[in-house]
Amino acid sequence: MGSIYGKIFQISTFGESHGAAVGVVVQGCPAGISFDLEFIQSELDRRKPGQSRITTQRKEADSIEVVSGVFEGKTTGTPIAMLVWNGDQRSKDYSHIADQFRPSHADYTYFAKYGLRDYRGGGRSSARETVARVAAGALAKLVLVQLGVKITAYVSQVGTLKLLRPVEQLDLSVTETNAVRCPDPEMADQMFHYIDEIRKQGDSVGGVVSAYITGCPVGLGEPVFDKLHAELGKAMLSINAVKGFEYGSGFDGVEKKGSEHNDVIVKEADGTVRTLTNHSGGIQGGISNGEPIYFRVGFKPVATIMQDQDSINEKGDKITVSGKGRHDPCVVPRAVPIVEAMAAIVILDFYLRNRVIQMPA
Amino acid sequence: MGSIYGKIFQISTFGESHGAAVGVVVQGCPAGISFDLEFIQSELDRRKPGQSRITTQRKEADSIEVVSGVFEGKTTGTPIAMLVWNGDQRSKDYSHIADQFRPSHADYTYFAKYGLRDYRGGGRSSARETVARVAAGALAKLVLVQLGVKITAYVSQVGTLKLLRPVEQLDLSVTETNAVRCPDPEMADQMFHYIDEIRKQGDSVGGVVSAYITGCPVGLGEPVFDKLHAELGKAMLSINAVKGFEYGSGFDGVEKKGSEHNDVIVKEADGTVRTLTNHSGGIQGGISNGEPIYFRVGFKPVATIMQDQDSINEKGDKITVSGKGRHDPCVVPRAVPIVEAMAAIVILDFYLRNRVIQMPA
Amino acid sequence: MGSIYGKIFQISTFGESHGAAVGVVVQGCPAGISFDLEFIQSELDRRKPGQSRITTQRKEADSIEVVSGVFEGKTTGTPIAMLVWNGDQRSKDYSHIADQFRPSHADYTYFAKYGLRDYRGGGRSSARETVARVAAGALAKLVLVQLGVKITAYVSQVGTLKLLRPVEQLDLSVTETNAVRCPDPEMADQMFHYIDEIRKQGDSVGGVVSAYITGCPVGLGEPVFDKLHAELGKAMLSINAVKGFEYGSGFDGVEKKGSEHNDVIVKEADGTVRTLTNHSGGIQGGISNGEPIYFRVGFKPVATIMQDQDSINEKGDKITVSGKGRHDPCVVPRAVPIVEAMAAIVILDFYLRNRVIQMPA
Amino acid sequence: MGSIYGKIFQISTFGESHGAAVGVVVQGCPAGISFDLEFIQSELDRRKPGQSRITTQRKEADSIEVVSGVFEGKTTGTPIAMLVWNGDQRSKDYSHIADQFRPSHADYTYFAKYGLRDYRGGGRSSARETVARVAAGALAKLVLVQLGVKITAYVSQVGTLKLLRPVEQLDLSVTETNAVRCPDPEMADQMFHYIDEIRKQGDSVGGVVSAYITGCPVGLGEPVFDKLHAELGKAMLSINAVKGFEYGSGFDGVEKKGSEHNDVIVKEADGTVRTLTNHSGGIQGGISNGEPIYFRVGFKPVATIMQDQDSINEKGDKITVSGKGRHDPCVVPRAVPIVEAMAAIVILDFYLRNRVIQMPA
Repeated sequence: MGSIYGKIFQISTFGESHGAAVGVVVQGCPAGISFDLEFIQSELDRRKPGQSRITTQRKEADSIEVVSGVFEGKTTGTPIAMLVWNGDQRSKDYSHIADQFRPSHADYTYFAKYGLRDYRGGGRSSARETVARVAAGALAKLVLVQLGVKITAYVSQVGTLKLLRPVEQLDLSVTETNAVRCPDPEMADQMFHYIDEIRKQGDSVGGVVSAYITGCPVGLGEPVFDKLHAELGKAMLSINAVKGFEYGSGFDGVEKKGSEHNDVIVKEADGTVRTLTNHSGGIQGGISNGEPIYFRVGFKPVATIMQDQDSINEKGDKITVSGKGRHDPCVVPRAVPIVEAMAAIVILDFYLRNRVIQMPA
Repeated sequence: MGSIYGKIFQISTFGESHGAAVGVVVQGCPAGISFDLEFIQSELDRRKPGQSRITTQRKEADSIEVVSGVFEGKTTGTPIAMLVWNGDQRSKDYSHIADQFRPSHADYTYFAKYGLRDYRGGGRSSARETVARVAAGALAKLVLVQLGVKITAYVSQVGTLKLLRPVEQLDLSVTETNAVRCPDPEMADQMFHYIDEIRKQGDSVGGVVSAYITGCPVGLGEPVFDKLHAELGKAMLSINAVKGFEYGSGFDGVEKKGSEHNDVIVKEADGTVRTLTNHSGGIQGGISNGEPIYFRVGFKPVATIMQDQDSINEKGDKITVSGKGRHDPCVVPRAVPIVEAMAAIVILDFYLRNRVIQMPA
Repeated sequence: MGSIYGKIFQISTFGESHGAAVGVVVQGCPAGISFDLEFIQSELDRRKPGQSRITTQRKEADSIEVVSGVFEGKTTGTPIAMLVWNGDQRSKDYSHIADQFRPSHADYTYFAKYGLRDYRGGGRSSARETVARVAAGALAKLVLVQLGVKITAYVSQVGTLKLLRPVEQLDLSVTETNAVRCPDPEMADQMFHYIDEIRKQGDSVGGVVSAYITGCPVGLGEPVFDKLHAELGKAMLSINAVKGFEYGSGFDGVEKKGSEHNDVIVKEADGTVRTLTNHSGGIQGGISNGEPIYFRVGFKPVATIMQDQDSINEKGDKITVSGKGRHDPCVVPRAVPIVEAMAAIVILDFYLRNRVIQMPA
Repeated sequence: MGSIYGKIFQISTFGESHGAAVGVVVQGCPAGISFDLEFIQSELDRRKPGQSRITTQRKEADSIEVVSGVFEGKTTGTPIAMLVWNGDQRSKDYSHIADQFRPSHADYTYFAKYGLRDYRGGGRSSARETVARVAAGALAKLVLVQLGVKITAYVSQVGTLKLLRPVEQLDLSVTETNAVRCPDPEMADQMFHYIDEIRKQGDSVGGVVSAYITGCPVGLGEPVFDKLHAELGKAMLSINAVKGFEYGSGFDGVEKKGSEHNDVIVKEADGTVRTLTNHSGGIQGGISNGEPIYFRVGFKPVATIMQDQDSINEKGDKITVSGKGRHDPCVVPRAVPIVEAMAAIVILDFYLRNRVIQMPA
């Protein structure tokens, strides 16, 4: 339980960091979608390790293999299984931690929950499972692009370095041109050097990924529990290392008065209903209103650091966990495609859910 | 779709603000639980309007009626249906907005989604639906108390007034002694007067509810998508007017380094595994580790204000929405029991889900 | 758990035989459907006790009350809660069986499962819960009729009395004109007298309800586990006293050769794809092919009889269960609307599920 | 949608007959189960083609590959993915039917539903998908055996040849000693020759698989919709070619009177509650009562025959479908392990579901 996400466009993921493979079975993908394998691979490439010196130096080809659900280049409406084999496993790297509980990892909680655990690289709790999310999200994007929905994410904070310019003033096409994935080149540069500094210290640091979605049809999201932003929140909070989620005006909105915060509704000449401001973040009453959807996702500093730390082992003995392995000093650059992927999965799922609530004319 | 929550302790809610009743059907409640109707009613009383001059002056008795699933004072393991009849409906209050789209309400999005809507008091989008959540949450609390789990929430911010003292330094038993539900009496007083000021202005203001959960067993939460904090996040974000959720170190944790943020694990003399700090917020890898769970929920200023506002009607004509009706200038005092209720539902659901993953000895 | 049915048109039922009420919350009903309360009541009237001397003499008005989800005569797309209050409860009738396990009832299994039980009239295990099914099914019918789907059921066997004429030779409009609900008036008469005879003996007898569905669109049903007939089977088998389900050629088809059994496909002048025979029962590979869907549902003789029977009580002491109360000697006449209701719920759910698998042009 | 089965022990299957592989992701398998790969392979071997001259002559090694969820020989509580690569695909065998709708196959319905289809060997509608069921079912058996549950199935009818002896008089250990999987050697012999005769005629014939389950704990099954037999029924009806399901007294029970059919309850010397007869089939009110569970599953003659048949193609032209390929003249011998597998999945799922309804002492 816990590895299935979505109601209609539903993904079921599997795989451990150092098992044979990680993968996903996608149910409920509409039939007849052109299956662009190259695009899916390119999304995985955005996520993969070793992209620059500020990301982990693990070498993983992360080549996608499609097992089912596609015929003559189109989706058939049946489950689409996709696998990425784990190449560079180096299981021996982890034998020294077989009985250790690393601080702020899931070692202790998995052991306590299941009575045993795959300790190699964190097993199922490793962020390697996000490979499956990115593959499924890429597929969702292939459907959404036909509907005119565009999902982009970018790094807006690293440690205390904050990109304060509002999204409307940013050139999001710049995001992918730097290793940090920050659309402000100057800030990207500062962030890069800061992360590199942290890396040299053998430490890690947190950050924020912001997302911006345009072209989302009006009416997505379901009343009460399955509000669009509630599901986006769950999807984002389920990503490794995420500690917070806010959308629209977010926590800043708390400080506002209603008279400042309310978004005045107007009808434009072409008949489009718009709001003059967008503190609502494109969602009202849990349902999209056609305005851009935007939200922020806060990531903690990753728990793996290259420093010695006190802890205990399975027996409860005090031990020192020594800093080894190859890890990211800051996850947010590689988290950008993961945030986009989860957003795509949520939006497509709600799009499909929304198709059933009104009868055809 | 969208009005069902939970996998095993599963609630299905229904009802509009000005329909006949609001209610809930609870599936999966364990059998043999002493059904303390008085306690459930007392939780509803904490939520109900008219508690002080800073909450809405609507008069609603909100008396709970139990329809099924309880026999001779005990739950029977079958669905428990509970209803609260809507007494003080005054539907006529709303006739003037029948075709109006109020700014930052769900009027436009519901109309666009469904092609029609129950405009009376927001219909299903009204916060009145939280009656059902509080009733179901009270039932969940009755089970959790047997397991030693204690869930408390309190107001920690109103507008820019922030309660900065950490939870460990607060006397949470004081929370319910003031109308604001802030455990710091001095701050509560300031908040009260601020909200009252806002009320006189015919305006509204946002706030933050903090939650604190102790006694949660180790091992609750499921890997990958159904992480404990992801589900808590969804549950909180699904409450009306919520714009953000963070747990543990939250967005502040973003700015920290791993070496500062990691929680060192120790084993106490009595064998209990603890962490020296608790930036993790009691959850690691999505699974509870036995430390207190804490999180913050940000509420926007409610959209209903007693001032004239520009908007459009269903036909798209420009109109003025005039401020009428009886509403809360700040929702957070009454949101406290709602946050607790949703937390109780989530924790109990995960407790039950966790019972199946290890075989009995 | 166990009282929710359907994926999109999803019903959540509740209520005990002698509790306050039985009811249902329907999620996922399309918006804008004219809510014909009179029709729903008329379907309940077809199910209610006391219709003739061959059905139980309990007097239950079974008046439906709608609590939510309907506004100005139309469904709003939000949950529709419907209740039937239990009037003629006579709980005292059952005090003598408070600790008795009646043979072939659910008394022992409920007690063993839950550790306690509502013994009054079988509690949740009573066929009274089918009130909720019929109400939800009537709502489903209101949607299906707009799509041209027609669902009819009838009694085709009582004890050893079998209606052998194929459905194409029957005048199904006659079904409701007799107390047995058999479309062959002569056979209906024989069945009536046989059931009346059984009643006088204080005994009960089984029967078969056949169903016939026309106008079902091509393409309903999902591959592999959620085949249309698999879900119809589950729905029927979930009705009290059902012991078997077969569709199309059914168990008789077992004895046939493929060369006899295969249905030749043709295209008619108007472009409709048809089959020359219909051993498939309108379903191929789990998906409707546009031909009439037909199936048979076998009901055992009800367990309640007016004769003394050996059994044990909760303590394990040998006892005599004496025949008291008011029950049906044969359930199939009143089961006809229940079979129709469950079929309607299944077909509508699959209709809605099918709307998402192909992208709009 | 449609390829997921189970609530807690939940399987998600994928794969087409002539795609790269068929497989399954199992969620919710308890942790710490010894993963006996050899046993799982042996179950697949019972299902695989080419076992004797009365089964299809396709050569498929059907070697299972485990991708995740198992560590050091034990299940870890995380998703278990298993794959069987499709070796002997011979896609060219099917090019001649690329646009043909074979009678009583799913060709037309898949095409109508999805707008396109993988025509090779039936694609997703092929019985090859049952490989995934058998693999998952074998895993379920590994858990159930620890609980003392034993599931056995056997062939009880082929065409008109019926094994009339009740199960108590059969030596089920004989079942696997003959190619038909009938526990009566003499009848097995007759059936074998009959099937062989049918094979020579290029025809096919139906049959019945009976199942017998002992050691099932009391209390499995959920009230109302998820009755144990309702879910068993759905599981069985979802198997390719199944047309009917009955349990306990089944359709024969229809003809009985209540006074004959009711099972008298007794308490044995050792405290066990038993029934003197077992017309209930081990299930009362949808919940297991500890008696053996038994049911019958009716299979139609498979649609593929080695004879010419009239049909149409995608354009609607009249065509002749010629009999080619390698198929089973009678599926029931190979269906035995599939019936067992689905039964194991259902029983284990209910076992796990039942663990949550009573609070721990």
